[in-house]
This record gives sequence, C-alpha cells and structure tokens, in this order.
Amino acid sequence: MEVGIIGATGYSGLELIRLLKNHPQVTNIMLYSSSQSGETINRLYPHLQNEQWKPLKEIDLNKISAEIDVMFLATPPGVSAEWSGPLLEAGLSVIDLSGDLRLTDRGVYEKWYKRPSAKEGLIEQAIYGLSEWNKSTIKTAKLIANPGCFPTAALLALIPLIQAGAIERDSIVIDAKSGTSGAGKSPTSMTHFSETNENFKIYQVASHKHTPEIEQQLAKWGAQPPLSFQPHLAPMVRGIMATIYAKAAKPLSNEWLTDCYNSAYENAPFVRIKENGTFPATKHVFGSNYCDIGFCYDERTGRVIVASVIDNLMKGAAGQAVQNFNLMHGFDETAGLEAVPMYP
Amino acid sequence: MEVGIIGATGYSGLELIRLLKNHPQVTNIMLYSSSQSGETINRLYPHLQNEQWKPLKEIDLNKISAEIDVMFLATPPGVSAEWSGPLLEAGLSVIDLSGDLRLTDRGVYEKWYKRPSAKEGLIEQAIYGLSEWNKSTIKTAKLIANPGCFPTAALLALIPLIQAGAIERDSIVIDAKSGTSGAGKSPTSMTHFSETNENFKIYQVASHKHTPEIEQQLAKWGAQPPLSFQPHLAPMVRGIMATIYAKAAKPLSNEWLTDCYNSAYENAPFVRIKENGTFPATKHVFGSNYCDIGFCYDERTGRVIVASVIDNLMKGAAGQAVQNFNLMHGFDETAGLEAVPMYP
Amino acid sequence: MEVGIIGATGYSGLELIRLLKNHPQVTNIMLYSSSQSGETINRLYPHLQNEQWKPLKEIDLNKISAEIDVMFLATPPGVSAEWSGPLLEAGLSVIDLSGDLRLTDRGVYEKWYKRPSAKEGLIEQAIYGLSEWNKSTIKTAKLIANPGCFPTAALLALIPLIQAGAIERDSIVIDAKSGTSGAGKSPTSMTHFSETNENFKIYQVASHKHTPEIEQQLAKWGAQPPLSFQPHLAPMVRGIMATIYAKAAKPLSNEWLTDCYNSAYENAPFVRIKENGTFPATKHVFGSNYCDIGFCYDERTGRVIVASVIDNLMKGAAGQAVQNFNLMHGFDETAGLEAVPMYP
Amino acid sequence: MEVGIIGATGYSGLELIRLLKNHPQVTNIMLYSSSQSGETINRLYPHLQNEQWKPLKEIDLNKISAEIDVMFLATPPGVSAEWSGPLLEAGLSVIDLSGDLRLTDRGVYEKWYKRPSAKEGLIEQAIYGLSEWNKSTIKTAKLIANPGCFPTAALLALIPLIQAGAIERDSIVIDAKSGTSGAGKSPTSMTHFSETNENFKIYQVASHKHTPEIEQQLAKWGAQPPLSFQPHLAPMVRGIMATIYAKAAKPLSNEWLTDCYNSAYENAPFVRIKENGTFPATKHVFGSNYCDIGFCYDERTGRVIVASVIDNLMKGAAGQAVQNFNLMHGFDETAGLEAVPMYP
Repeated sequence: MEVGIIGATGYSGLELIRLLKNHPQVTNIMLYSSSQSGETINRLYPHLQNEQWKPLKEIDLNKISAEIDVMFLATPPGVSAEWSGPLLEAGLSVIDLSGDLRLTDRGVYEKWYKRPSAKEGLIEQAIYGLSEWNKSTIKTAKLIANPGCFPTAALLALIPLIQAGAIERDSIVIDAKSGTSGAGKSPTSMTHFSETNENFKIYQVASHKHTPEIEQQLAKWGAQPPLSFQPHLAPMVRGIMATIYAKAAKPLSNEWLTDCYNSAYENAPFVRIKENGTFPATKHVFGSNYCDIGFCYDERTGRVIVASVIDNLMKGAAGQAVQNFNLMHGFDETAGLEAVPMYP
Repeated sequence: MEVGIIGATGYSGLELIRLLKNHPQVTNIMLYSSSQSGETINRLYPHLQNEQWKPLKEIDLNKISAEIDVMFLATPPGVSAEWSGPLLEAGLSVIDLSGDLRLTDRGVYEKWYKRPSAKEGLIEQAIYGLSEWNKSTIKTAKLIANPGCFPTAALLALIPLIQAGAIERDSIVIDAKSGTSGAGKSPTSMTHFSETNENFKIYQVASHKHTPEIEQQLAKWGAQPPLSFQPHLAPMVRGIMATIYAKAAKPLSNEWLTDCYNSAYENAPFVRIKENGTFPATKHVFGSNYCDIGFCYDERTGRVIVASVIDNLMKGAAGQAVQNFNLMHGFDETAGLEAVPMYP
Repeated sequence: MEVGIIGATGYSGLELIRLLKNHPQVTNIMLYSSSQSGETINRLYPHLQNEQWKPLKEIDLNKISAEIDVMFLATPPGVSAEWSGPLLEAGLSVIDLSGDLRLTDRGVYEKWYKRPSAKEGLIEQAIYGLSEWNKSTIKTAKLIANPGCFPTAALLALIPLIQAGAIERDSIVIDAKSGTSGAGKSPTSMTHFSETNENFKIYQVASHKHTPEIEQQLAKWGAQPPLSFQPHLAPMVRGIMATIYAKAAKPLSNEWLTDCYNSAYENAPFVRIKENGTFPATKHVFGSNYCDIGFCYDERTGRVIVASVIDNLMKGAAGQAVQNFNLMHGFDETAGLEAVPMYP
Repeated sequence: MEVGIIGATGYSGLELIRLLKNHPQVTNIMLYSSSQSGETINRLYPHLQNEQWKPLKEIDLNKISAEIDVMFLATPPGVSAEWSGPLLEAGLSVIDLSGDLRLTDRGVYEKWYKRPSAKEGLIEQAIYGLSEWNKSTIKTAKLIANPGCFPTAALLALIPLIQAGAIERDSIVIDAKSGTSGAGKSPTSMTHFSETNENFKIYQVASHKHTPEIEQQLAKWGAQPPLSFQPHLAPMVRGIMATIYAKAAKPLSNEWLTDCYNSAYENAPFVRIKENGTFPATKHVFGSNYCDIGFCYDERTGRVIVASVIDNLMKGAAGQAVQNFNLMHGFDETAGLEAVPMYP
C-alpha cells in the first residue's frame, strides 16, 4: 500500500510518519506540500535523520493515482474542503484529520469555525471516523472525517452512558485538559515555554469548536441539549484528560457502570476500562493508541464522574487515522499501532 | 510582634518563614519542633542559607508566652487538635493551617478525615479564616482555622453567586487542578518526578476532604445540597485553578456577573476580578496572595463558568494565614504580602 | 527617587518593575516605549493587574530630567548605544542591562555581536557593574554596563581563583545551563513548549557573545587566554548553573578553596559560599539576588570544579541592576532585594 | 526465543518489556522476582493493562533452562554478581544491565561502588556490551556487561577521537546532563517533583561511579590519565546529553572531524553524525536507540567540543541490551528497535 501525507511538517503529520514508517502494510510514504516543495523532512526535523526521505513535492492530480492509494490530510482548516473532492475523483481514499468535514450542519460549522464550510456534497460523503462506534461504515468508506482530539476522549466515555439512557443529557459537563502539542508547531505566546511551564490556563471559554462535534455525535442516540465542554492547557506536551460529570437518570452503581463499559468495549482493542476504584493518568497511554476510561458513581451527588485519557496525537489524531486506515482496507485493526505506551 | 511556627520544615511552614522574615511588624520568628529539635532550618533547606536562624526547639508551655505572641501551626492532621488548646491557655493567639478545626460538625470531620476530630469546645472557638468574608470576626479572633487551598479558590468564586441567589445550588461542579506542592514534601510515587512530569492525574475521586469544607461554608447562605468537587494533579509545583460550572437560577448576563463580583470584592486587596472576556492563569498569581477570578455566562447551556486561581502555598495557605494575622492584630491587611507575582 | 525603564515589556524589564515597585527609595516608576506608547503594562501582563500603572510613554529628552533621576535600559542590542549618551547629557544616571557597553574593545564587540558597536567615548564612560568586584567605581558611576547573566555566574566563581593565581588560565572550561527566560519573550521554535519540555539543548557552540565579556573581565588580573564557554538550554524558566573546570596551578585543597571564597566574599551580602561537600541547585536562589557557589578540588585529575548558580533575571539582570542602583545612590546594598528565595 | 527479566518492575526492566513485547524473534517473556513473586506487572504499572502477563515468579535454577534462553538482569548492585554465574551454569545467556561486571579491576570497583565486587572469574567472562565497538566479541558472548548510560554517551563520542590520536588525553572534561529516570523508580527528595521541576542540580561531584568505566574503556587505546566526568540532573524524565571538551593533539578542522566520525560509524545503524554546524538535542532521540553526535573544532581555544545525546533508558540501558541480544543471536541488529523517535 502506498500512502501520501499532506501536512507532514505539522505535529499530526509527523506522528503519521512515525506510525506509517513501520506499518507492515505500507510500502511507500509520499509527502506532499505546496509551500515547502523540494524540502526534505529530516532537515526540518532532525529526529528523522538517517532515514531515507524523498523531498516534499507538489500534488499533481493527474499523476497522484499512480503514486499513492490513500491520502492523509493533516492540515489546517480549509485545505481538506478544497482538496478532498479532487483526490476522491482521482481515485484515492482520503482520511482527513482536520475539522473540515466533521460537522454535517454547514451553519453550525460556519458559526463555530467562523469560516465558510465545505460543500454539502462533500460533507455528505464523509464518514465520521470514531473507530469503535462507526466500524461498519468506516470499513466501506472512501472519505473519513477523523474525529477531533477532545471529541474522541469525550465520546468514548459518554456514548455507552447515553446509549444506555443512564445520564440526564442536559446535565453533562466536560472539563478537558490538554498538553501543548494540540496547539501545533507554530510558536505563540500561548505556548511559549517561559509562559507555559509552571502555568495552568483555561482557553476558549464556552466557545471551543469541538463542542458541536461532541453534541452532534451524541445526538445520534436522541436529541442532545447543549452541553458544557471546556478545554484547559496543562504544562505538558502530550495527553488529554476529559473529566466528565453528569446526573444519573436512573439508579446506578459502580458495578452497573463497570458492566456498561466492559460490554461496550469488549471487542475494542484500544479502549481499556479501569477496574472499579482505579483511574487513568495521561501517561498511561503516552505514545500509544489507547483510550483509558475510569469512572465512579457518586451517591452523595447522584452524579457519574468519568475520566478518559488519550494521547492527543495518537488516538486523538494520527493513531486513530491509522486505525481507520486499517479498518478501511481490511488490515488488522491494530496493525502499526502495537507499541506499548512509553513509561515513564 | 514575636511569632512562632510549628511545622516550619513543611512547605507551608517554609512559605510562612519567607513571608514573616520580611514582615514589617514581625521582630522575631521562633521555629518549634519536637522531632527535629536542635536542627537548624538552613541546613535542611539551603535556600535559607546566610540568614541567622535559631535552632528548632521543643515547645515548653510554661515559657512559650514569654517567647512569642502568636503561633502558626503548619502541621499534619491531629497536631492542632492537640496543641491549640494549651497554646490558647498559655495566652497566645493561634493560626492553624491544618484542617483540624475547619469543620464544625465532628461527625462530618470523622467521616471525611477518617480520624478522631478535635474536641467540640475547641472547634467552637475557631473562626474560619476566609479573610474576605469573615473579616469582622477574624479581627477579634484568638484562634483561626485557616481555610484549605481548594476551598479558598472555590469559595471566593462561589460565595458572590450564592449570596445573590444566582445559581442553582444542586448544579455546582468544581473541577480543580493543583500543582504538586500541595501534596507536601514527603517523596511518594504520586509526586515522583519521573511519574509526574508529562502526566496529568485525577485523584481522590468524589472523596476529597475539602468537599465538606466547601459545602459547610456555602451553607451559611442557606442549605447547600451536596456538590461535586474533584481535584486533579497538574505537572507543576505551585498553583491551583478551580473551574466551576453551575446552572443559572435566574436570567443572567456577563454584565451582571461583572457587577456582582466587582461589588463583592471592591474592598478586597487580594481578589482581582478579570475584565469580561479575559480569564486567569495560575502564573498570574505565582508567589503572591492574589486570587484572580474570571467568568462567563454561557447562554447556550444556561451555565455560569468561573475560573479562579491562587498560589496554593500563598492565598491557599501561608499567605492567607499572614493576611489573617494582619487582620487579627490591626495591621494593614497587606503587610508583608505586597510582593508582585513573579512572572515569568 | 524617581526611576524610568525602557524595555519594560521584556522579561528583564518586568523583573525591574517587580523589584522597584516595592523598593523603599523609589517613589515613582515611569515606563517608556516608542513602539507601544499609550499602552498600559497591566493589559499586556495580567499578573500586574490591580496596581496603578501610567501608560507607556515616548521619551522626550527635553522633559525627561524633570520626570526621573535614573533610567534603566532593558533593551535589545543597539538601543543603549543610541540612547545612553543623550540620557546622560540630560542629566540622568543610566543603568544599561544590554550588552552594548560591556566590551571595551569595539572590534571584539563587532566580531561577536555582528553589528556596529557604540561610540568609543560612550563605552569609556561605562562602568562594568559586577557589584561585588567593582563596588568603588560603581558608587561614583553615572553609566553602568550591567553584566550579562552567564558572565555574572562565571565571574563570581572564577575571579577569586584567578586573583589567587590558583588555576591555569588556559585550562578553563565553563559549561553553562540556562532556563528559557534568558531567551526573552518572543516566541520561537527554540522556546516553543512542545519542543522544549523534556528536551535539553546545546546552542551557539563556541560562539556565544558572553565569551569575550568573561575573558575581558578575567584579563584584569593578567592576560587571559581564550577560554571555552558553552551555553545549554534546560527545560525550566529561570536559573543558570555554570559548572567550571580548571587545572590547579599549584597544590590546592578543599580547605584552601573554602578560605579563598569565604575571604573574597565575606562582605558580599548576595554571594553565599557552600560548605565543603555541598553544592548549589538553581532553585536555591529562585527569585532572589543570590549567587550560590560550591566547589571541589579533585585530586585525581588536579582540577578545581566549581558550580555557581543564579536566577538569570535577578542577579543575572534586574536584581544586579537594582544592586548597582543602590550602590550608585548610597542606599543599603540590599534595599529592595531582601526577598527570601521562593522554595519550592 | 524465550527471554526472562529479573528486575522488571524498575524503569530499565519496564523498558525491556516495552521493547521485547514487539520483538519479532521473542515468543515469550518471563518476569522473575523474589520479593514480588505472584504479583502481576500490569497491576503495578497501569500502562501495561490489557496485555496478557504471567505473574512474577521466583527463579528456580533447576527449571530455568526449560523456561527461557536468555536472561536480562535489570537489577541493583550485587544481584548480578550473585546470579549471573548460576544462570550461565544453567545454560542461559545473560545480559546484565547493572554495573556489577563492567569494571575489570576489582579494586577499582570496590573503591567507586563502595561494596564488594563480583568474583574475578565471573568478571573475566563478561564482555563489555558497547555494541558499536565490541561487535565481534559480543556476537559470541554468553555474558554481557551492558554499558552504563553516561559511559555510552561519552564513549561513542570519544572513542573515534582517541583512536585517531586527535585529542590530548589529559585534557578531557565530560559535563553530562541527565533526566530523572536514570535515578530509578524509588521516590526520594532528589527526585521529588516539587524540588526537581524548575531546578537544575549537580550531584556526585568528581565521584560518580561511571568515571572509571569510561576511563577503563578509553584505556584500551592506550593509557588513559584520569578524566573529569561530572553528572547533573535536568528537570526532565528521559535523555542524556554529554558535552565533551578536549584539547586537540594535532591540527584539526571541522572537515576532519566529520570524516573521523562518519567513517567510525558508517556501518552503525544507531549512531547518527550531525552535519557540520548542527547539534543534537535529547528530544531528537526520545524513545529510540539512537545516539546523535554533533561536534565543533574551536580554533580560538584549540578545543574539540562534542555533544552526544541518547535516551538513557534506550541506548543507555534497555535499547542497547536488546541490540546486544540481537548481535549475540545473529538477528538483525535493529530488530525490535526500529521505532522512530517520538517527537514532539
């Protein structure tokens, strides 16, 4: 299988390179760029020295189908809206890691992203790539809208509860904490080391664009009232923890929650359900495609509290993209993703 | 004024030393310890080298009133329950930074702290030292129960809203994030650098002993149903952010919230209310006694979202203790606490 | 005393504000800027909220002497070369934290800084402000060239040894490690959190412009052959450690070294000599003006090993500038600098 | 191939598990422990959840040869001295990651390690496992003394220069910086997060036990006078940088150095020589088995400056152990070690 990456010089793109380099079914990786064409990736990123890398090249739609079978887009907003259509027409499968094609309602996209949305026809073709819950449609998809990092952590924790009718839908609060790699490689004062280390920040209060993505997915199991999703920036590079609070809609127990999660994910190789009374930390999944989920029913308050952790560049971006790539092409779901988390 | 510290070798004790060393009204600092008597603090902590420090000494209740006027207790659970009474009888004022005397209901204490509580008579004498809200009683107090770090951040954010009847009391969720210094100086695997850096942890899920402290204080403005308080450990040394979510109980707006907070704290030198649309970060208060509060009314969800930050060793411990010391003795409330936050 | 700062929005400028705000002899602080005139500092830096700050204003040389007595320049290369002369002529004292006036040889400046040097006449007026060693000339100076951060750490460790003829001058190796705040507030990929945390970097190999500054000062005690000075970037915000290696020029011992350092600094309030067998860490001086020095004579290799630590923004920049300000104006050398290091 | 690990619950042991789990030639991993027998590794380390792990078990020398072919010892001092002999007699190959068998001179061991050394006969059997330089002897070895982390970084940088007679042997200074994982999993105040973050420390001044290990290896190319090796602790988890200074023994140039290093390592898959003028950072090798080496000839001082980086748990411990395992058994040298460094 020959694959291409647009946006290889960003952090999700780098992570795709790291994963696809050792993927048993990938024979060739092509890196595409319009602005940096001719450059080689290992000059930009010394950690990639000593491997053979072809120079970044411009996309030529007339030749692309001869070069690769699948294109990964790890790009800023707008790129996928423009390029996915032509790439599909050229006969490729496309896995889009950006947010361009995740929201089915164009008005919602334009309100939260504050930019024009992709064309309706394109959006309709895109399958939302939450691997564990859309497996059958992903298997036959040509175009994947790979989920956002925060939605992945939140949805894997919430869907089993929503599906079971276990929580009051208008009581959901998602308090999320992320490392800085989610903010990308462009230096800003928000991610300047001197102002980030020994600092904990809240950002995009009640206005983060992953909010409608989470709501849209939960709505698939019935109408979803607006929920509160609030991201924070922790002084670390990788990792997301979503702490979720919701009122129980019926009498619950920790045993019931254990059963609920275990049965939801019994065939999911990348979701690990914590034993009752134990909780995950982001480092437990560092560098891996796992999502670890711990939970507790708090009788005092009648709330379910769930903590869900992922590596934002893996299950929150490149890892899940490769998982979807595997599903689309009939490979083992874990191919190229077997790495044990790095600890400590 | 001559002051003493029991527990000077812990982090709150060290911070008391740092503050009292340059306090304009403090002429002498005595350090007491039973276990480390004879030791000098600058041998244990090289950052204190080059200052003159008398050796740690044992408490002699017969002589203590001749040595000092006020005793600060920066001690583990149980010490204050034992020593505060005798110290008061010896004629001293006592400021207790531990949790021994904060909860008025002994049963609640024993349930959450899982140890015997202090005597009822002693607890009744203790004034809860949330400086901004108990100022008049603090001014005449002989015994202060200095608030916990998380309750300080949470209560300063919540009391104005509760007092105004602005939020539904059974909807309160407090998601708190703390640096490691709150866990003290004893090395544990929870705070081992290799397992803490690049890691974000949740702990004591639905069971942290600061929960009833917050509830008890809020109940002063009417019955307080159980609320959710959930702490997390961020990979940094100092700083707490409490992110608070609550349903509005009446039609609100950002303007109303601004007025509510500004009028609540117009005479509070250490509470800084953020301008609408801006939010605090823990580093904004690093090394200072400030509590910075930012907020937002989210019309979509009908929730108020408040972010409150403190330096856990300052406003969350030693700083507020010195603030209370000032209030008790008629000094300027800011004496010894004028330091500008250290940034970056 | 009324003081002004040019470059207040940089990190050294911010640190000057922090120190001068509570300086007992400073009644007024004026902030000057050409590019950001009209802006207020607390809008740029929220940690300064709640204090009264006049807007940044342009310098008017005709009025400046009526406004302030002393100007601090915390500015990029070139600014001091241009402004120090006119400010002196306007009757002010000037303390320059930049490197413009530190090197007496203009050719050396132009070679290492790769830009035109200041005028010879101006350079000749500047007194090198290494407080401990140039105290008498600083006391009568009108223009101070405040030392660089690395030279301060290195020189305080080396001068006593050089003065005593204890080390072979051509054997000196200075391996220095700095936090990121020395690189300033401008976001770059070098200081981007994602690429700085969990990373240790070497930079400007054999080419850092503090090299000739160290050599020039050591040459005052006889010719100084070229030495090796090599900086590194550690994943922390504040702090410098210089580890220094030199061959003994005569039979030495740890006792001799102890005497040598103690006698060199017996009247220096900000230099703390470690007891034999103990060594400093950067956190021991965090937020303070101290320089802590530990040392060892290694009989096996015949080398002296010295470790010297400072807070780069304090003794390495703003702190030493205030120390020099005190010396110039006959204030207590420690005025405004009494803060105990913050720990942990 | 079936392999065993003693010391699996330490950080080097964990890293061996991570590597061997996906090693193409390893069919079974047995974990041995006397003190924790019966425990399962994934209860101790949640990042290992979801994999099948047999409980830790005691070693039975009578059965061990039926269970495994190779034993890795990732153990504290003394364990290997005791167990390697019996394991060899039982027919196993042994790879010892501890320092027990690295020093050929028992007196030197006892002086630096301050404990009794292993038996002479055992030490004589051990091959020093610096893969790149002892390849032919490693290939036929039954017992490997895997190099220390600091010696690996230092020797890979120094041997090409020593071999070429390019540097004065009595001028070598090695200033090394390490992350905390090298200090192991036991919580201590040295590695307590609150006292390690935002801190840079020097330790074991002129007395680190890796010093004689480096000297012994360099002596293989002629007598090696004592050199200075000085470790420091940087506030990060993984990574070592050794910065090395030495006087040139003959006229040198950057071009000559480039040739020297490139020819020394042209067939070494894990040593990457930096292009002239570029230097490594520890994050370039994070999680991988690479050693990246950058260098510069400083004409001004006549010194060669070399910076060498490794991941201390990989090339500095478990990675090199697996590399040696591959060499010993005729597998591809890179088997199980192909992972691209994780960045950022």
